[in-house]
Amino acid sequence: MKRLAHVRIVLVGTTHPGNIGAAARAMKNMGLSDLALVAPKVFPSGEATARASGADDILAGAKVCASLEEAIADRELVIGASARLRAIPWPQLDPRECAGMVAQSPVKTALLFGREHSGLDNAELERCHYLLHIPCNPGFSSLNVAAALQVVAYELFLAAQTEPQALQEPMSPLATAEQMESFYQHLDTALHEVRFLHEKKSSPSLMRRLRRIFNRVRLEQKEIHILRGILTAVQLQLKRQGSSTCGKN
Amino acid sequence: MKRLAHVRIVLVGTTHPGNIGAAARAMKNMGLSDLALVAPKVFPSGEATARASGADDILAGAKVCASLEEAIADRELVIGASARLRAIPWPQLDPRECAGMVAQSPVKTALLFGREHSGLDNAELERCHYLLHIPCNPGFSSLNVAAALQVVAYELFLAAQTEPQALQEPMSPLATAEQMESFYQHLDTALHEVRFLHEKKSSPSLMRRLRRIFNRVRLEQKEIHILRGILTAVQLQLKRQGSSTCGKN
Repeated sequence: MKRLAHVRIVLVGTTHPGNIGAAARAMKNMGLSDLALVAPKVFPSGEATARASGADDILAGAKVCASLEEAIADRELVIGASARLRAIPWPQLDPRECAGMVAQSPVKTALLFGREHSGLDNAELERCHYLLHIPCNPGFSSLNVAAALQVVAYELFLAAQTEPQALQEPMSPLATAEQMESFYQHLDTALHEVRFLHEKKSSPSLMRRLRRIFNRVRLEQKEIHILRGILTAVQLQLKRQGSSTCGKN
Repeated sequence: MKRLAHVRIVLVGTTHPGNIGAAARAMKNMGLSDLALVAPKVFPSGEATARASGADDILAGAKVCASLEEAIADRELVIGASARLRAIPWPQLDPRECAGMVAQSPVKTALLFGREHSGLDNAELERCHYLLHIPCNPGFSSLNVAAALQVVAYELFLAAQTEPQALQEPMSPLATAEQMESFYQHLDTALHEVRFLHEKKSSPSLMRRLRRIFNRVRLEQKEIHILRGILTAVQLQLKRQGSSTCGKN
């Protein structure tokens, strides 16, 4: 049952403690054990324990985090469950594709499940490399959060039972979510300094498109260093020229 | 959504009304509508309605039966969910096999889900043509009844989608090789202007790494325009600052 130890389930802003308990039970049923709770409304709770129905160890080990950043800081792959079709198409997986990708590779992964009534918000979805959509009745498409997790966990369990693929050649370590955020902040700063974002007056949507590009590529840590090196070079060069300016403009 | 109209879900001896509501929600999410309740402890119930979360029509249409016989009288195929391995081997299906058998044939089918603590009893299991077993952690194998139904309903929904999937929304055109080359030339030029490549004296290998990143991401044409817009902004800003320089360096 250690096959899924690299998979963290992250419940974001869960309102009903019963759903946390049901999620813990679904996790243990399917061999998952790493649970993080981002700003749960009520936790711990007798209702969570009752619905966990014996998966007390999962609840006891759950990390309670103040922010999503904290819950995913060390993760190399972030996948967010989303019922909505989105205006900007983000790379999408169904549960089986997601399970195939996640179960066969040891990459540190976070699977995010959002609030009962509103799911994950846009800023949270933009942290994700992929969105996970569960096929369902388009006329009644909102699954209970623990039910959605149950479906995904079931597919993960099945995928983890298959023999591992021939080992891929060892990859260079992938950038963590924290490193990606630092990169995006650096990029945002540099793009303002070169007046790319300021000029266009559409920073949020342009930054979203840039996030979409760089999330999709699954950057290695080495590659992040190169890209940040470029940003630093741009900033230095602007500063050099700026400091040698005699005031006329 | 009429594809699964021949499938009846039968909940036998359910104790907690919340589970009946959660089951109704899972059914409606996955395009099922025929629900029978055999001797439920409490029904109807506000808790069932709350957990159904809008699947009120399923609850309103549920047939309440005094006996299993009554619930399955008109059924041609009966399949019972069972967590236990049984001494007498009964033909067994996993959810995917079950869904494949059920969704593609119009045979009137009943899927039975038993009591929260004890499942279906022997007499009930013996009414079944097949037993349905959900693969899971052998050390913690009792799924919540609505969670088990959610997994099976999900597989039924997938199996019922024999129609070709709705066409994926047309992707934005991908960049051609020619466009990618122009981009790399632009990038190379700009990186020299900001002295990123010059300084490092390792241009070929750095450019190779950058190619590796941007080739991997399969850029769209729109995205190429954004990235080249950034390069142009960098160049313009350098030029602006350069032209206002008074010569000292």
